[in-house]
Amino acid sequence: MKQVLDARCIVCGAEFEARPQVTLCERCGGVLEIEYDYQYIQSVTSPSKISESRDTSMWRYKAFLPVQPESDTDGGLRVGGSPIYIAKALGKEIGIGRLYIKDDGFNPTSSLKDRASAMAVVKAAEAGMDTIACSSTGNAASSLAGNAAARGFKTYIFVPERAPQGKLTQLLIYGANVVSVAGDYDATFRLSTEAITRWGWYNRNAAINPYLSEGKKTVAYEIAEQLGWQAPDYVALSVGDGCTIAGVWKGFKDLYAAGFIDRLPKLISVQAEGCCPVNNAVDADTENLSPMAEDTLADSIAVGVPRNFLKAVRAIKESDGMTVNVSDGEILEAIALIGRTSGVFGEPAGVTGGAGIVKLAKAGRIPKDASVVSIVTGNGLKDIANAQKIAKPPLKVAPSIDLLIEAFGHLE
Amino acid sequence: MKQVLDARCIVCGAEFEARPQVTLCERCGGVLEIEYDYQYIQSVTSPSKISESRDTSMWRYKAFLPVQPESDTDGGLRVGGSPIYIAKALGKEIGIGRLYIKDDGFNPTSSLKDRASAMAVVKAAEAGMDTIACSSTGNAASSLAGNAAARGFKTYIFVPERAPQGKLTQLLIYGANVVSVAGDYDATFRLSTEAITRWGWYNRNAAINPYLSEGKKTVAYEIAEQLGWQAPDYVALSVGDGCTIAGVWKGFKDLYAAGFIDRLPKLISVQAEGCCPVNNAVDADTENLSPMAEDTLADSIAVGVPRNFLKAVRAIKESDGMTVNVSDGEILEAIALIGRTSGVFGEPAGVTGGAGIVKLAKAGRIPKDASVVSIVTGNGLKDIANAQKIAKPPLKVAPSIDLLIEAFGHLE
Repeated sequence: MKQVLDARCIVCGAEFEARPQVTLCERCGGVLEIEYDYQYIQSVTSPSKISESRDTSMWRYKAFLPVQPESDTDGGLRVGGSPIYIAKALGKEIGIGRLYIKDDGFNPTSSLKDRASAMAVVKAAEAGMDTIACSSTGNAASSLAGNAAARGFKTYIFVPERAPQGKLTQLLIYGANVVSVAGDYDATFRLSTEAITRWGWYNRNAAINPYLSEGKKTVAYEIAEQLGWQAPDYVALSVGDGCTIAGVWKGFKDLYAAGFIDRLPKLISVQAEGCCPVNNAVDADTENLSPMAEDTLADSIAVGVPRNFLKAVRAIKESDGMTVNVSDGEILEAIALIGRTSGVFGEPAGVTGGAGIVKLAKAGRIPKDASVVSIVTGNGLKDIANAQKIAKPPLKVAPSIDLLIEAFGHLE
Repeated sequence: MKQVLDARCIVCGAEFEARPQVTLCERCGGVLEIEYDYQYIQSVTSPSKISESRDTSMWRYKAFLPVQPESDTDGGLRVGGSPIYIAKALGKEIGIGRLYIKDDGFNPTSSLKDRASAMAVVKAAEAGMDTIACSSTGNAASSLAGNAAARGFKTYIFVPERAPQGKLTQLLIYGANVVSVAGDYDATFRLSTEAITRWGWYNRNAAINPYLSEGKKTVAYEIAEQLGWQAPDYVALSVGDGCTIAGVWKGFKDLYAAGFIDRLPKLISVQAEGCCPVNNAVDADTENLSPMAEDTLADSIAVGVPRNFLKAVRAIKESDGMTVNVSDGEILEAIALIGRTSGVFGEPAGVTGGAGIVKLAKAGRIPKDASVVSIVTGNGLKDIANAQKIAKPPLKVAPSIDLLIEAFGHLE
């Protein structure tokens, strides 16, 4: 991996060899970040070289990714290459000239998390391991289960007992060994950590594994390439654990460092009002976390103790970004608004970035001529129950054209 | 449209101009088929020209599609370009050497029907109409709603009152005007037909609109291109209304007629045991339909009176194909089998083709060295309730590593 220099602790600065199994800093327990040799990357690739690639998956950016040259990146699900749409109707409605929707629910297991899980299975293979584990009830778990199944890895996934049956189904169908823990999320996470140590499984907890945000950063590469190797003025997305926004920022910084784009975007960090510890810290200009309750229906970002807190806070600040918190009602409204105007159906956390843009635009905080990208992080089919709350009811009629005409009349 | 000759009735052979609004045969009421000038198509495109295209959507095959050269095919959702996977583990398990899964649930609204709806919105635009209607409770409706929303069309969708809330949600989120009819599917269909006539909407009923299978045929083009411009020995898929299998066959025939592939595949038509009128007719070597009850949990193919019956029966026979009917239990088992071995989660009708392959392989009816493509037609997230029936339950433990060790012990 000539493109990779090392894995560096973001807290104490200690540097470690970037082995596939590397997790937290061995000195201080801080989160690690993979560092690159951009001169080397420039010597092996270029924007035009990438644009000519026939590989439509995230691996078209392999020169920027921390994998061995000989690693098999073709053997799994086709992750990445999600579409970006110009959201003309929505932009008009909220007064933004160049609004784009990056539909990343358009991935094999229907969320952006596939980018991290695709990376995890390749790193597990490099480590010579055949079993991967994580603790999650949501998209991280289902994406791990799906990507692992496609490549013949065994998975152990730890979920708290309160995990809704619907969310479990996708995992179970992918053949994951699901361990339902009689306890809360913290107890589940701790048991998963013990089990991972005990049996020596590959660890796909985004809290710990520095390669996962390296997978997620590919969404930023795609946005830049799809806009003609340019960064937009703003990129908005929902923030829970912090790993995704940190990955997005890393992606743009990579491209900037390699000279593929000539400026960086500002990040718009959108959290739920009922669970916004990252935004609170940014707003208070502190790097100290004040944990919060997890009071939002957007389950994928209901994270009171974000484990990539520091990376997220720094990313937002470095980008000279903005924070905005939205209510559950605003999230539900965004599901309907984005669906109706753009034909993209997102889950609650998936459209939270969009809800933030709507709120900022209404408040006049986004210039009308700005280019803004909203990343939809998960498909709405993952959470039909919440979507039902905002769906307008159908018009009910007896099977008669006259009664239909009458019913339509009442609508006007 | 120099590539299109006419729209020809498959019953009486009458030929009509291929206007965008053309529906059934004006002489006998038969279903129409769009006919092409393959010499012209050969003069404007070639396999290598298509393979060089940067367009990853179904519109990369525009030279073979019945749309005006000036029609805007870029303005909507990105439909098509779904991945094909070599299903090594599954192939090994059932004894087929070259088994592929074409995951067509990997589409914007998560089903193959997007290919038809993308075509419908382009044809509606050509007709100068701004409103599109259909009657359906399933994937045709949600794909129409999503593709129409993305391009600013209004939609009216007629559903029988028994339509499950879950299936309705996706439609409603896309902003469709949903009319819930107090009656069965037939009453709903008749009311939709009256309303379409009354208000002059564009008709997206696959029963009537000959362009829809022209959209669906693009899945065959992709399979051939993804296999290096070759047809596999067999293509298996579920059959309900008949429109999809007819489209698949048309796609391969187009490529063969244009000299892009040098042989045709055999079709494997898979229906549910509780609703298999197409297969019954093929098996009895008749073109007369005997309607059936709709007794299967695979709702997308529960069609007792298939409206593209004749096209489907002829396609299967012409291809020298096979028929196989599977039980609901076999369908559920296929959900789990394909999920576990391949990381692809299909809805019941989505994996019915796969269930048929498993059954035929077990019976020794598919040569071990054959190349076989199974088309998964819809994403499993569309029907969590049925997937739950086959998902194995999680292992329940208290949060203690000792108890976990004990629990694992009991499993072995």
